[in-house]
Amino acid sequence: MGGAEKGEEKKADEVDAVELVADVGVLKQVLDGRWMTVRDRARAFDLDEYDPPAYELSTEEHRARVLLRLKELAASGLPQIGFPEASGGQNDVGGGMVAIEMMGYRDLSLMVKAGVQWGLFGGAITALGTEQHHARYLRPAIDLELLGCFAMTESGHGSDVQALRTTATYLPDTQEFEVDTLDPTARKEYIGNAARDGRLAVVFAQLITAQGEHGVHALMVPIRDELGQPTPGVTIADAGRKAGLNGVDNGRLSFDHVRVPRTALLDRYGHVAADGSYTSPIDSPNRRFFTMLGTLVRGRVSVAGAALSATKLAQTIAVRRALQRRQFDRPGGEGEVVLLDYQSHQRRLLPDLATTYALNFAQEELTGTLHDLWTADGERDEHAQRELEARAAGLKAIATWHATGTIQACREACGGAGYMAENVLPQLKADTDVFTTFEGDNTVLLQLVGKGLLTGYRQEFEDLDTIGTVRFVAENAVGVAIERTAARNVIQRLTAGRRAGDGHLRDRAWHLTMLEDREKHLVETLAARLRVRSKQLDDPFRVFNTTQAHLLTAARAHVDRTVLEAFLAAIDRCPDPETTALLDKLCDLYVLSLLERDRGWYLEHNRMTDRRAKDITRAVDELCFALRPHVATLVDAFAIPGEWITAPIAQGDSIS
Amino acid sequence: MGGAEKGEEKKADEVDAVELVADVGVLKQVLDGRWMTVRDRARAFDLDEYDPPAYELSTEEHRARVLLRLKELAASGLPQIGFPEASGGQNDVGGGMVAIEMMGYRDLSLMVKAGVQWGLFGGAITALGTEQHHARYLRPAIDLELLGCFAMTESGHGSDVQALRTTATYLPDTQEFEVDTLDPTARKEYIGNAARDGRLAVVFAQLITAQGEHGVHALMVPIRDELGQPTPGVTIADAGRKAGLNGVDNGRLSFDHVRVPRTALLDRYGHVAADGSYTSPIDSPNRRFFTMLGTLVRGRVSVAGAALSATKLAQTIAVRRALQRRQFDRPGGEGEVVLLDYQSHQRRLLPDLATTYALNFAQEELTGTLHDLWTADGERDEHAQRELEARAAGLKAIATWHATGTIQACREACGGAGYMAENVLPQLKADTDVFTTFEGDNTVLLQLVGKGLLTGYRQEFEDLDTIGTVRFVAENAVGVAIERTAARNVIQRLTAGRRAGDGHLRDRAWHLTMLEDREKHLVETLAARLRVRSKQLDDPFRVFNTTQAHLLTAARAHVDRTVLEAFLAAIDRCPDPETTALLDKLCDLYVLSLLERDRGWYLEHNRMTDRRAKDITRAVDELCFALRPHVATLVDAFAIPGEWITAPIAQGDSIS
Repeated sequence: MGGAEKGEEKKADEVDAVELVADVGVLKQVLDGRWMTVRDRARAFDLDEYDPPAYELSTEEHRARVLLRLKELAASGLPQIGFPEASGGQNDVGGGMVAIEMMGYRDLSLMVKAGVQWGLFGGAITALGTEQHHARYLRPAIDLELLGCFAMTESGHGSDVQALRTTATYLPDTQEFEVDTLDPTARKEYIGNAARDGRLAVVFAQLITAQGEHGVHALMVPIRDELGQPTPGVTIADAGRKAGLNGVDNGRLSFDHVRVPRTALLDRYGHVAADGSYTSPIDSPNRRFFTMLGTLVRGRVSVAGAALSATKLAQTIAVRRALQRRQFDRPGGEGEVVLLDYQSHQRRLLPDLATTYALNFAQEELTGTLHDLWTADGERDEHAQRELEARAAGLKAIATWHATGTIQACREACGGAGYMAENVLPQLKADTDVFTTFEGDNTVLLQLVGKGLLTGYRQEFEDLDTIGTVRFVAENAVGVAIERTAARNVIQRLTAGRRAGDGHLRDRAWHLTMLEDREKHLVETLAARLRVRSKQLDDPFRVFNTTQAHLLTAARAHVDRTVLEAFLAAIDRCPDPETTALLDKLCDLYVLSLLERDRGWYLEHNRMTDRRAKDITRAVDELCFALRPHVATLVDAFAIPGEWITAPIAQGDSIS
Repeated sequence: MGGAEKGEEKKADEVDAVELVADVGVLKQVLDGRWMTVRDRARAFDLDEYDPPAYELSTEEHRARVLLRLKELAASGLPQIGFPEASGGQNDVGGGMVAIEMMGYRDLSLMVKAGVQWGLFGGAITALGTEQHHARYLRPAIDLELLGCFAMTESGHGSDVQALRTTATYLPDTQEFEVDTLDPTARKEYIGNAARDGRLAVVFAQLITAQGEHGVHALMVPIRDELGQPTPGVTIADAGRKAGLNGVDNGRLSFDHVRVPRTALLDRYGHVAADGSYTSPIDSPNRRFFTMLGTLVRGRVSVAGAALSATKLAQTIAVRRALQRRQFDRPGGEGEVVLLDYQSHQRRLLPDLATTYALNFAQEELTGTLHDLWTADGERDEHAQRELEARAAGLKAIATWHATGTIQACREACGGAGYMAENVLPQLKADTDVFTTFEGDNTVLLQLVGKGLLTGYRQEFEDLDTIGTVRFVAENAVGVAIERTAARNVIQRLTAGRRAGDGHLRDRAWHLTMLEDREKHLVETLAARLRVRSKQLDDPFRVFNTTQAHLLTAARAHVDRTVLEAFLAAIDRCPDPETTALLDKLCDLYVLSLLERDRGWYLEHNRMTDRRAKDITRAVDELCFALRPHVATLVDAFAIPGEWITAPIAQGDSIS
């Protein structure tokens, strides 16, 4: 106890230097992936610069500027590509999403306003409407002749969309719906484009006919007339100043006996005939609800993508600062020490950088999955859609928390300079902060992931709320099987060849086993606990509630494992050996940082010895030292155009 | 592996309900501590409210408002009490600090501007000046007739103050100093009060006489004339918009052959006679430097205090929201579930709340120590001053990181509502963000703490930079002794009586042993590593650098232990048995959360069995459930006046 442990000292300074010349171009290509062309088009799109900078503007001035930029973006043709060909698009769903995510580098208010207009408003019309809606609304929505809102969240209900209280009651006499805000909890809240620019809103409301209630449906409701005044019965309030994203005009909407024609119902999944009779291609109200909600998946993927764009910009700034800034003399008269040469500074920036790479690859894979599923001919595979939703939920949660934590670390790593508005980090922090709770609160989303793990994304999924899941698990023998997301042959290739020495810290097969085993154990013990407690306790809420933290941990373990697999698949795609070697080392840092973070769990479950836990900590230190010479290359490969990096502390190329 | 572990289920739902009626008034009294009267005076001080709210203002409007508020604060008589009686104060150093920290509840820009004016500017004149400076400057500084700056940080040197590059050269012919900014890295940066209001600056510069260089000293330099124009040779630039604290006018100062009279030197620790001969009561230049820098300790304590004020306000808002907001139906038709009834929400808010209590008590104790040391008659005890500096550095680092993390968690716990400016959390986040890096970067401060642990705050301390510490430790047998901060009899009373059952999770003696043992082991192994590596490596920087993360962990472990002791001392002071019982349970949550967080370390060092680690996690869950009914009481005891809590989501009393 009195001295350092035996045997560890000899390894302590073994900095396993990587003498590689990795190719920035190749790295960029691997990062950019399938939509590299769209990304390059977005990089070349020359958004006008305005004076003064956004952080000097009042809310109204900022909103006006972002609307101008939105028009520039529309004129670029980029947002269009995701729409159906019949509406002038290219049906490139993934490309349309990527184009909007790329705006996360430039102006997050613009990205979010674009997401509201084309992703949510345009996306809802595309997915929930039928041909007449497409023909009437899509082109003007794409070209910005018609600015719209996506009015789902209410002041009383954000996460629990199924419990929304706005009503749309069919009146057969006039063939109209009457839309009503029954009480203040039913007021539509935080609605983008509502405070200033929106003309028409997709309003989510409980549909009521003479037959009864049919659950949540969406209707097109005009909220402003040609002169910009609220339409009769519509009350619009400004949501006011926010922590960030003040270029987006969020507002509140209330409806008092507002009449819209029968055709206003987006009726792909629920139709009301002239006589008021209701029909739907989906019998189960729950399944119908979740199918309609499935359109939200695109928004979640886009938020994760924009969060990663913002994170990359923050990391580029912090790394360039850390490569230029010196503080405290190095003994021996060699001048002052560069910040990034300090172990604490490496620890602060490098594991996060490895994680950004990992999440980039997972995001790229997820976009591809969504694109393929949504552009496939024939009926959509429901199991695949459920799995997509769960993966999007999980990645959105992990990527946005990563953004919040990493941008904060970058801000602190830049000291006082990081607090200055001109150095961009404050805006990135403030704008991305809401990402962890909008488009689905992260905690609620991880619960969704956990539910999927317990039920295997099966058909019954849609009929199960959280309590239903508890009952399902309690009553069924749930078998947990880890489905690998990357092709099995890729993993075999990467795990078989490499450093297969027994128990080597960089043995890839061991990494995968550790993450898979953790996920499997967490899900199995969760299922077992739910069964046991269901027998002990009468109250299913208490059964759920005493295992909620366990459920969230299981969900996170699942996401971590799928992200590692995406990293492995990306390494496999890399065409250049030296670049592959660098990615390989970066992947080691990613996975060993995870194991270090969770070593309490591994140790208490006898998955790791105390000796091995200490070795992992040392290996993370050593990998940071070894990767230090390559950090400039790693951020340069994000290929953020120089003129987009306006922070004075990050001017010039990276200097290693 | 397939099922849940045996034996754990029976305990899982054992919610050990606390049926206590704790007294909010008693809790408040224990929290408020020695300066309760000053705190109550600050609570009663009726700062004018202005329209519109600060977040709607431009930078210039915001600055003007904060100056108005500063004048109101001066008129209240509160800031004065900390100054010497000869200058119209009451020599109540602790009370003066507490009064300023309380402004952290109201307006953090005001708190920081007050800290610059009275704490830094007034404090430097008091501590570094002699009678003529006190007589001439203190009253106008106190009464705001003279607004001043504390010009220390330079664009090239923030943390490494000893390497500042501004020069003050004595010219015997005219008996003047010439102050110069030699190059852009010597420009004074982020200086509060510089951009708009300051007239005079305390400028830190390398003092040069014909005899040579004497190290960093402070001089009074006029920067603006009566008309508010920069004085000849002084260039003032505006630092511009920041992430937060935009009511404080930070600026940059450069000096070009600026002449000031010989009397401008604050000469308590270094005097220049008319003929240019230099004398100092402290021979060692290093010791002189650290003695002058010792005046900074007050600023650090105040920042920690203000960070805790902001944290308490954020927790009050988030808890009130969590007690009112409902989401998702509870099965059985009992309506929707209150957010704070969810395990994940309790986990998100309650351990942080326990930590805020712990840090409150540590802060209160530290303020008392500073007050007693600074108001004691006779020469100041240097060892005690060194220890005070280390404790202030450690608590500042831990309290400000706690603020950043906790306010973020509160923001997320409030969902979209937490992102709205009117709900105050965005401003708290933005304003407190810089606390982790100003008044000493937290990482640098923790290094200082680590250094103190290695050298035992001994006399040599001042002569040791970090590398010097490495050499010192390498060459001396460093014995590590844990000095308990709280009176030994208090700890014995609290640990002896209570639940002494062998290995009980709530055994207080076991808690203390765990934290002490961790600290001792980390410091001992650190010293051993430094010795071993000094023999292996020629380069002392590499010796230091490969152990930097270890050093920081040791420092944090030390702070955690002293904070626990402060919590115990506070429990001992509590006059009411039921309130004591509540504090006792809250302290359990604090310490078990620490053990849970660091269980990886305890497991890998064989300080904890795997069974015990799992029991701790379950105990944290159970304590959250048990404390749930008392959360409203716990935030109400912060006694933040109702009209200071302007967030609409936190209106009304807490509802449990």
